[in-house]
Amino acid sequence: MPVLKFDEIPYEAVRKGLQRKIIHEKELMTVLLDFTDGPWEEKEPPHHHPHEQTSYIAKGEIIFYCEDEPDQHLKEGDMFVVPSGKMHTIKLLTKEARLVDSFTPLRRDFLEK
Amino acid sequence: MPVLKFDEIPYEAVRKGLQRKIIHEKELMTVLLDFTDGPWEEKEPPHHHPHEQTSYIAKGEIIFYCEDEPDQHLKEGDMFVVPSGKMHTIKLLTKEARLVDSFTPLRRDFLEK
Repeated sequence: MPVLKFDEIPYEAVRKGLQRKIIHEKELMTVLLDFTDGPWEEKEPPHHHPHEQTSYIAKGEIIFYCEDEPDQHLKEGDMFVVPSGKMHTIKLLTKEARLVDSFTPLRRDFLEK
Repeated sequence: MPVLKFDEIPYEAVRKGLQRKIIHEKELMTVLLDFTDGPWEEKEPPHHHPHEQTSYIAKGEIIFYCEDEPDQHLKEGDMFVVPSGKMHTIKLLTKEARLVDSFTPLRRDFLEK
């Protein structure tokens, strides 16, 4: 799939209030995540994965939490990186937010539905 | 560098009309590219690299050209992927555009300045 036209590809529901659209090659995956259930009182439970991750905040505001790092208030245009294996999570500060997450290698768990 | 706050990190000039900000880990790099010299009459010369690439169109409209694929008119919210070694390029259709490009492995040529 060389392109993903937003208006032509349906969302995949992750859970209530979170939908995604995925594009990938063999070792690189990018996931558009649209959140609609913010703001949150609590952060999501921290998690970790062996994949490296970068994220671009395309809409909204979040707090990004990463093991051994100070909490970061991020907004549209900001980016973060997650090293392999590091515990991390976010908290939404706005009703809606869009994150564009990239991973290497592929998050195969995202393709097994 | 776990985060890149847009307002705190200066652009790096790529050329007149194109500036970027880069975040990366060991095998994954994401590059925020802000174009301000569109629209273009011609596409940029096609190029290729061994790195896999994904791109998110954060602002503006482009035509995406990729070897062996039909030309694609893309706008905010759309994404494209470039397999390793494939010739590809873009043409800007709007004055301004923002692309968020991810690469694996690292584009070391982007870090050698």
